[in-house]
Amino acid sequence: MERFSNISMAVVRRLPKYYRYLEELLRNDIKRVSSQELSKITGFTASQIRQDLNCFGGFGQQGYGYNAEELHKEIGKILGLDKQYKTVIIGAGNIGHAIANYSSFEKSGFKTMGIFDVDPDIIGEKINNITVRHSSEAEQFIKENDITIGILCTPKPKSQEAAECLINGGVKAIWNFAPVDLKVPDNIIVENVNLSESLFTVSYLLKEKEEANAKKR
Amino acid sequence: MERFSNISMAVVRRLPKYYRYLEELLRNDIKRVSSQELSKITGFTASQIRQDLNCFGGFGQQGYGYNAEELHKEIGKILGLDKQYKTVIIGAGNIGHAIANYSSFEKSGFKTMGIFDVDPDIIGEKINNITVRHSSEAEQFIKENDITIGILCTPKPKSQEAAECLINGGVKAIWNFAPVDLKVPDNIIVENVNLSESLFTVSYLLKEKEEANAKKR
Repeated sequence: MERFSNISMAVVRRLPKYYRYLEELLRNDIKRVSSQELSKITGFTASQIRQDLNCFGGFGQQGYGYNAEELHKEIGKILGLDKQYKTVIIGAGNIGHAIANYSSFEKSGFKTMGIFDVDPDIIGEKINNITVRHSSEAEQFIKENDITIGILCTPKPKSQEAAECLINGGVKAIWNFAPVDLKVPDNIIVENVNLSESLFTVSYLLKEKEEANAKKR
Repeated sequence: MERFSNISMAVVRRLPKYYRYLEELLRNDIKRVSSQELSKITGFTASQIRQDLNCFGGFGQQGYGYNAEELHKEIGKILGLDKQYKTVIIGAGNIGHAIANYSSFEKSGFKTMGIFDVDPDIIGEKINNITVRHSSEAEQFIKENDITIGILCTPKPKSQEAAECLINGGVKAIWNFAPVDLKVPDNIIVENVNLSESLFTVSYLLKEKEEANAKKR
């Protein structure tokens, strides 16, 4: 995946967290926050927070801290959340259903326009007011509706083929839930959500703890 | 979250990837692999791979590389995948359904024993042969069935309460799909899957690319 700035992915991945924490503060009517306070909430060090935000020009004021509302808005802009993105979902199984029904995504500017599957039992079904169509229609649909993001929820063996259909249609990014490393051109953004990897991390940490406890005995 | 070894979370999070890539190699009947070849497949540098595997004693042999089957087995053991874990799912919405139906988790040793919800329309329903029960029964069920992992798929406002019920029941780890930072005792392992954060990363990368393209024009 080609990158267009020097900002590291580690910083990029912290931004949604800042955004979420600031939302939380605003909900609790907190208007001003220092990097020390942000550190307490987020678990990142105050200097890391200042460094991260400095990547984007810095928003704090010495002795005042950050205006929570302003910072929230600015990070939202940096994240591109002031824009609208049209998406399609390929694969209307459980994960596809879950994503289609996640109301918070639409509030953040991600609008599901189409859902596609190959299973005749699912085609024609309505999910969140969208009728599931046959996957063979996806490419044309993406072209006609100017879709930016393809959400890939197909089973593993179908996922490379489905990714190619998304790319041929013209999506710029793939949000991939299939446990596969997709082969895509360099100009296509791919973000993987690999649930097994996450669950295996749980298993590792459990085992590590068990071993440490066994040693103590 | 308390840790019991000096191995960094960054290394821990790479282990499931190695495991998956080695599985792929074995499926293609490849028996021997060098760190250079692993580097090509994984995208990590060869020296990083050697360093990572050295954390656990190192398995390669100078001039031979790694025995793929042995390495796969050893990493599986390090990840604790040679063990069985009993799990419960709290929240039988779309994500809960998806997790319950993921057959690959059971193959890896994670067995869903119970599913709980508060919605009378869902209670009594069978998901993957497990009858959904009322969430008020979860704590007792966890105690009686020696459950290790609680999978939290509740809506945001219910999630802290549900986490406490899991902890009171005696789980050692929570796999959390609710977009909330749970407050838990230090001895409880928490692994968060935050889908919004992942989607916002897509949005950031799209915006970064757009801005770079605009500058070129």
